[in-house]
Amino acid sequence: MDSKKGMKRREFLKKAGVTAVAASTAFAAPNVHAKTKTYKWKMVTTWPPHFPVLGEGADDLAKWITEMSDGRLKVSVYGAGELVPAMQAFDAVSQGMVEMGHASSYYWAGKSPATQFFSAVPFGMNAQQLNSWIYQGGGQALWDELYAQFNLKPFLSGNTGVQMGGWFNKEIKSLDDIKGLKMRIPGLGGKVIAKAGGTVVLSAGGEVYTNLERGVIDATEWVGPYHDYKMGFYKVAKFYYYPGWHEAGSSTELFVNKSKFESLPADLKAIVESACARANISMLTHFESQNNKYLQKLVNEHHVKLKKFPDDVIEKFRTLSAEVIGEIVEKDPMSKKVYESYSAFKKDITQWAKLSEATFYDMNK
Amino acid sequence: MDSKKGMKRREFLKKAGVTAVAASTAFAAPNVHAKTKTYKWKMVTTWPPHFPVLGEGADDLAKWITEMSDGRLKVSVYGAGELVPAMQAFDAVSQGMVEMGHASSYYWAGKSPATQFFSAVPFGMNAQQLNSWIYQGGGQALWDELYAQFNLKPFLSGNTGVQMGGWFNKEIKSLDDIKGLKMRIPGLGGKVIAKAGGTVVLSAGGEVYTNLERGVIDATEWVGPYHDYKMGFYKVAKFYYYPGWHEAGSSTELFVNKSKFESLPADLKAIVESACARANISMLTHFESQNNKYLQKLVNEHHVKLKKFPDDVIEKFRTLSAEVIGEIVEKDPMSKKVYESYSAFKKDITQWAKLSEATFYDMNK
Repeated sequence: MDSKKGMKRREFLKKAGVTAVAASTAFAAPNVHAKTKTYKWKMVTTWPPHFPVLGEGADDLAKWITEMSDGRLKVSVYGAGELVPAMQAFDAVSQGMVEMGHASSYYWAGKSPATQFFSAVPFGMNAQQLNSWIYQGGGQALWDELYAQFNLKPFLSGNTGVQMGGWFNKEIKSLDDIKGLKMRIPGLGGKVIAKAGGTVVLSAGGEVYTNLERGVIDATEWVGPYHDYKMGFYKVAKFYYYPGWHEAGSSTELFVNKSKFESLPADLKAIVESACARANISMLTHFESQNNKYLQKLVNEHHVKLKKFPDDVIEKFRTLSAEVIGEIVEKDPMSKKVYESYSAFKKDITQWAKLSEATFYDMNK
Repeated sequence: MDSKKGMKRREFLKKAGVTAVAASTAFAAPNVHAKTKTYKWKMVTTWPPHFPVLGEGADDLAKWITEMSDGRLKVSVYGAGELVPAMQAFDAVSQGMVEMGHASSYYWAGKSPATQFFSAVPFGMNAQQLNSWIYQGGGQALWDELYAQFNLKPFLSGNTGVQMGGWFNKEIKSLDDIKGLKMRIPGLGGKVIAKAGGTVVLSAGGEVYTNLERGVIDATEWVGPYHDYKMGFYKVAKFYYYPGWHEAGSSTELFVNKSKFESLPADLKAIVESACARANISMLTHFESQNNKYLQKLVNEHHVKLKKFPDDVIEKFRTLSAEVIGEIVEKDPMSKKVYESYSAFKKDITQWAKLSEATFYDMNK
């Protein structure tokens, strides 16, 4: 795409009789020649077009890259199904059909189970801790190593914050109430529910509401009050449980075709990286700033029953989560390597959090 | 500075007999003409040169702006005293002597008391909450309004995370132990200590260690384990208290001369804004990733006595903090306007935090 654009410019200049291109290499200003090269890149996503917060996060990211590069790297966003189906985004970018993808890395557990540790792990880290591990604690190097196997370069691009536990059509008083429960819950959380005797039903985002309404499922997890409100689940489920033990801060990612990323000049590489950091903090604060307003609407206007999972259910989920992760780590050396780094970092930052964040929240209840 | 640079280039081109500049406006690539203009900007800071984490954060920010703009906006960083003394950074940028400043906004309480609400407030918000208010909850617009009075445009550029309560040479068993205590604690926290009967001693960063060693002060607050370790306070104070009730997530800022900022082309404006967001998340995760390692060194290698302020002392600090803020808000209409927004947002996000972050930390102790 870029080379064609370059050719067009050269042809135009030839016709216009302007010899500026060769002359421009003698300019005093830095890299004027490199800057005249433009790129038109496509970003496919796993979200419906302009999906609230998540798809909007992809839109913002593309806009910022395009703005900062003054159009030299122009990124166009395609919602799920517009170019490729949601779950083919990874392959499409890996194979170079398009240059960028916006998703959450646990969607690619089928490619490599280790991908899951970069988005959400049951009883794992929250947004601030995950960011600390990836940006400063060795996480990015491991993620790079994993994705390089697929000719991809990953970046964090957003976070949901601590999620809710989900919507249920019956009360959960003990672990017995999970037995036989048909729940839509993907990933490692789903494996935990299955171990607890539940039946995990996979369904695409667009079908969850209908499945819950028709009784195909008894429960579903989703994100948090703001997003869940927009999905309308309060119309078809009575009980809204917290905490989101299964996703304490799920990240979204931008993955770029690695060969194409490496072909960019240094300024455009830095622009992509910085735009991702901005998108990361922007999405998290977007969710955080809206969640309470919608939580109050759900409770006060729609009379949703807000419930906390009983402590013994949470502790049982914790035990089962450790089993689920143990099984993955045992089978897959890359998962072992990644999880060792992840869990050591979590242990370390949790010790500090006891004096800092945990004490802060104790003081602000 | 920029116009001179522009002139030099034009002179160079004239001498070289190259007519490319005029011709370049006909280029097919977007805004090639605008891109040939370069800016050399200075960033003054309130930190000693390359000060750990905080000064390094300023260095990173300047590097990213320079990298992303491919040198078209080249930012050079000056530590405190290298161009102007630390506490003259605000005026130097306001008056256009230099273009940028890196500091923490509560340093400028003397210019306007409302500045304090954009960095740290006793019993105020933590980093994630402050970011949510400023980026998504109306905080940025108020900050812009306040700083526009000084011809400045502010951005968040970092955060320390929840701080420690400080270093003490005697145990704090009740509020009586604050009476007569000579403590180095600036800002609103200092006003609280004064109300509690302490004597607030102001001293520049470089003098705190010596003052503590010589008994000029009995106590000092600083940042957290990583930074405090580097300052060496463990050599001259026995007790290390938490939590940092006075600073639950102190932000740093970048302020830009507003007229100069507005003169930038849109791409460079977007580059400055995105670089600040990246610097914000980078500094917080830098502190967060290192704090526990240094906390363990302090406790295990240097036998520092780690203590939590008694609950009744914390509650008394809370009452006094409300009084201190009440007095400011009563006198200054801009402080009233800003604090109303700040405190409404804090109340809102705290309701959500009860189900999310607070429950997360309860589960991870």
